[in-house]
Amino acid sequence: MTDGDYSYEGLDRLLHERARLSILTALSSEAAGRSFSELRSLCGLTDGNLSRHLKVLEEAKLLKAKRTGSGRGSNTHLTLSAHGRRAFMSYLTELERVLRDARATRGNVGESDLPSTA
Amino acid sequence: MTDGDYSYEGLDRLLHERARLSILTALSSEAAGRSFSELRSLCGLTDGNLSRHLKVLEEAKLLKAKRTGSGRGSNTHLTLSAHGRRAFMSYLTELERVLRDARATRGNVGESDLPSTA
Repeated sequence: MTDGDYSYEGLDRLLHERARLSILTALSSEAAGRSFSELRSLCGLTDGNLSRHLKVLEEAKLLKAKRTGSGRGSNTHLTLSAHGRRAFMSYLTELERVLRDARATRGNVGESDLPSTA
Repeated sequence: MTDGDYSYEGLDRLLHERARLSILTALSSEAAGRSFSELRSLCGLTDGNLSRHLKVLEEAKLLKAKRTGSGRGSNTHLTLSAHGRRAFMSYLTELERVLRDARATRGNVGESDLPSTA
């Protein structure tokens, strides 16, 4: 057991925030990227919220936005940048470490404390 | 593909916040619980930060705090409550879903976009 064993410095708040994690996962799972309206539905976010988080991610150069069409038919197409994909993969590796650590319980947990398997 | 597929409602902000996730993981991995000073080292948090997050988690009845000793030798011993353990297990299940979804990429990602395996 060492100092900072559970500090998870790799869980960068930029990627860890729930809405942004949701956006990054939706983008990561589709190499061709996704449209703004598709992301909005998939992530269950409002226009305003999605815009705000996309701006943060774009400014951090984690994703690329490309406007398509014009007027009412216009949309924005979002893809992860190469840097964004690498940063996200590195974040996921840290997340896997959390899961491993959390599942590795030392000592006995009382029966009643165990989650029901029903 | 359905609306909200990537919304991850189960990532409760109460548990998802990095410092609290760190605390919960450190507690979850040791059935006997841990002392305040042990948690402080393991999670790499300051006294103030750790106190603040423990208060939030205790008020949500996710953990139990028990003061031991007195004066300079006093310490607080923290354990997950049965409710806290269940809530954390349920959170971890949602986290596993994020990892599964994020790793399941549809379509080809350019070679240069793949994380180096070196």
